[in-house]
Amino acid sequence: MERDIIMKNNHRKGWMEGDIFQFLITSLKGISQVILIENALTGVIILIAITSTSFLLGVVSLLSSIIGTFIGKIGGADEAKIKQGLFGYNSVLTGIALTLYMSGPYHWIIALFGAAVTAILTASMMHTMKYLELPVLTTPFIILTWFMLLVTYRLKVINLTKELVPQDLSNWKLNIEGDINWIEGTFSGIGQIFFLDNTLSGIILFIAVFLAGWRLGLFAVVGNAVALLVSYWLGAEHLLIYEGLYGYNAILAMIAVGSVYNDNKQWVQPLLTGILAAILTVPLTASVATWLLPYGLPALTMPFVLSTLIILGARKVLPRL
Amino acid sequence: MERDIIMKNNHRKGWMEGDIFQFLITSLKGISQVILIENALTGVIILIAITSTSFLLGVVSLLSSIIGTFIGKIGGADEAKIKQGLFGYNSVLTGIALTLYMSGPYHWIIALFGAAVTAILTASMMHTMKYLELPVLTTPFIILTWFMLLVTYRLKVINLTKELVPQDLSNWKLNIEGDINWIEGTFSGIGQIFFLDNTLSGIILFIAVFLAGWRLGLFAVVGNAVALLVSYWLGAEHLLIYEGLYGYNAILAMIAVGSVYNDNKQWVQPLLTGILAAILTVPLTASVATWLLPYGLPALTMPFVLSTLIILGARKVLPRL
Amino acid sequence: MERDIIMKNNHRKGWMEGDIFQFLITSLKGISQVILIENALTGVIILIAITSTSFLLGVVSLLSSIIGTFIGKIGGADEAKIKQGLFGYNSVLTGIALTLYMSGPYHWIIALFGAAVTAILTASMMHTMKYLELPVLTTPFIILTWFMLLVTYRLKVINLTKELVPQDLSNWKLNIEGDINWIEGTFSGIGQIFFLDNTLSGIILFIAVFLAGWRLGLFAVVGNAVALLVSYWLGAEHLLIYEGLYGYNAILAMIAVGSVYNDNKQWVQPLLTGILAAILTVPLTASVATWLLPYGLPALTMPFVLSTLIILGARKVLPRL
Repeated sequence: MERDIIMKNNHRKGWMEGDIFQFLITSLKGISQVILIENALTGVIILIAITSTSFLLGVVSLLSSIIGTFIGKIGGADEAKIKQGLFGYNSVLTGIALTLYMSGPYHWIIALFGAAVTAILTASMMHTMKYLELPVLTTPFIILTWFMLLVTYRLKVINLTKELVPQDLSNWKLNIEGDINWIEGTFSGIGQIFFLDNTLSGIILFIAVFLAGWRLGLFAVVGNAVALLVSYWLGAEHLLIYEGLYGYNAILAMIAVGSVYNDNKQWVQPLLTGILAAILTVPLTASVATWLLPYGLPALTMPFVLSTLIILGARKVLPRL
Repeated sequence: MERDIIMKNNHRKGWMEGDIFQFLITSLKGISQVILIENALTGVIILIAITSTSFLLGVVSLLSSIIGTFIGKIGGADEAKIKQGLFGYNSVLTGIALTLYMSGPYHWIIALFGAAVTAILTASMMHTMKYLELPVLTTPFIILTWFMLLVTYRLKVINLTKELVPQDLSNWKLNIEGDINWIEGTFSGIGQIFFLDNTLSGIILFIAVFLAGWRLGLFAVVGNAVALLVSYWLGAEHLLIYEGLYGYNAILAMIAVGSVYNDNKQWVQPLLTGILAAILTVPLTASVATWLLPYGLPALTMPFVLSTLIILGARKVLPRL
Repeated sequence: MERDIIMKNNHRKGWMEGDIFQFLITSLKGISQVILIENALTGVIILIAITSTSFLLGVVSLLSSIIGTFIGKIGGADEAKIKQGLFGYNSVLTGIALTLYMSGPYHWIIALFGAAVTAILTASMMHTMKYLELPVLTTPFIILTWFMLLVTYRLKVINLTKELVPQDLSNWKLNIEGDINWIEGTFSGIGQIFFLDNTLSGIILFIAVFLAGWRLGLFAVVGNAVALLVSYWLGAEHLLIYEGLYGYNAILAMIAVGSVYNDNKQWVQPLLTGILAAILTVPLTASVATWLLPYGLPALTMPFVLSTLIILGARKVLPRL
């Protein structure tokens, strides 16, 4: 009898360890889901890329994913969705964005609070989008981050970094001068998905994507190339192009439309509609940035969300798209 | 035979009187529904609080509720919904808001016209939100009032009071100086739901809520307290805090999330999620105000609507929330 | 045997010719659908009105409708919807608007690209609105045109004409001086639907509507008259009134609410709700214009869309509306 109890205890302890391990795997998937991939190893490599740029950002990313996943769990969400990391990725992005855009000694606490609220908002939007049979993508992160940045103007304890400057559209002058560093442009786009703008992080992130599947990696490379060429050809600001600010939305849209949300696993149609989605992100990046100018807010991944939702929605009516 | 006819006439007359009485009861419920309560007596006491501040506002409130309910009736809406006062409360708020924010001799006519259109917009949004299984709350009032205030810039006969000043976000300076009158703050929050900012009205309104149920009253008190503390702690403008401008949304959100739209009639979970909703209204008030700054529009009850819809929506995916 | 093959070939050729003819008819219906009418002859007359004002605009209109319809076809949309011209009208409007608002030698290429993307956006919105049982109206055209106009601030190759000037709301002064040319006002309203502001085009367009049905024509005339009187009475800018900028939305709303989306084919109810919809477009035109002032964007047909969707949505809850 005693033995039985011990065995049971061991068994239970074993389960608990398994639970914690499973929970960590899920949180790492939460990080990889930022680039629409469900793969814990990809998550680890992304975490390395982030941490190599900033230790604080790395910690905040992992904690944000844990918080988001935890809220999904205690809230009683569908276990399958939690395990895919779907309650983590929006929180990860909010955590990173608020840590970077806010200043002051407690900015990371606000960032983690934001990550928690993002998980609730994600649940809310999942409910809304369920009826349209469309994914929420990174909408909860975008909405929450915009709102939190606007908050800073009204509450003393929360402060913006100097980077965000509201501007009058009537005073705006476009300046596309300056050389483009094409090599930097090649690797900064994927980095900007996680707000990283160094070449090394970009290379590590490409590895992370290729590791999840060489087809995905190829789509990421093509999406970035399309954005670089189209934005250059249309005369976008050179500084923004080589910093990757025209690339990151294109990469995400290309992966989403061409691969992740595409049942067609051949080459021609996925590549073509993926490239169309990538192209659309370029004017969308330009217009969202103009729209937000009076508030000084960053476009974040809104161009990716708009481009992807337009095409995924259209596909329900135009099945060959 | 003659007797029969007389009796029938009496009977019919009796019915008609009953109809008018029923209609008035419904209109009073329309007033109480502003604070999510279906109770004619609560409506009467609210009407007293409004009329004691301004006779005109009292008349406009009652007429607006009557107009909204009347449109529901002649439009052929579901009788059960009409009787709950659901076609009245948005019209009441629009009537009050337009009377206060507009000037000129005929501003109350425009206010009543606005109340009528609000009822139509309410029906339209009921249709839209039905699919999401979420309530419309005060969204029709907010949208219509914002649009009507923007109208004033383009049509000569409609004029704004001086209070609304569009401002450039880049010139905005936060000033939180000044003492807080905590007693005023305690009673002005609930008054601001009806655009009243005197202590007496606030006390009468608390009585109106407690009369509908002491649990509801308690939620209102807690919601207000949470908003006062959180907004003070986060460094909001002191003037706005004690005028109740951070409190009214929190009270509504606390009542909605904690009690009215909560099947759990115990204490712990309703109080906790209610408090969460109340806390969220504080940053939402700050960000909505910043967002509207270039247009000089008031936030109205938008922070309450956003906080409540986020949590009610999330609850469909996170059932334990 | 040989004869059979020849006959078959002829037969096939005949079919192909028939296909091209059918496709052209559909494209002409795409033009007439701008005023909610499915009638190829009406489309031809509209095309004459446009071409008589500007040859380029005429060509762009027809090409845009062809492009939109073609995308519906290769995308595999529901054949019945394509044949009604429902994939054409939004593209037609985008084509015209971008040709007019943009400058530079290749502006018409951008306009046609915009027309193509509009067809995709139309499909996407059809999917979204299907759940609400509401029509998309001209929403895809409006959204796409606004976004493309905002794009011009950020991409060198795309330029705005000088007409669009972002303005600060705080510096805005309303000036309603100037006489109204009532005859011009009578015919410019319907012209403005297609961005035409000369009297002749207006007369031809009225003919096009009456040709599709004298009841439709009457609704168009009444809608325009309502807008002229209400906007004058409310003190709108006289210049805008007689240029037809308060009229075109009212005409469209009157036709949509009173006739096209109204099962009641008698007179009283359709006329009354149609007039209500037409009246609502006047304050909506004023408020949408104010809302867009900081961006210098035109209101386009947004007032028509808002007025019509509010009433069609409300009708689901208020069946007698």
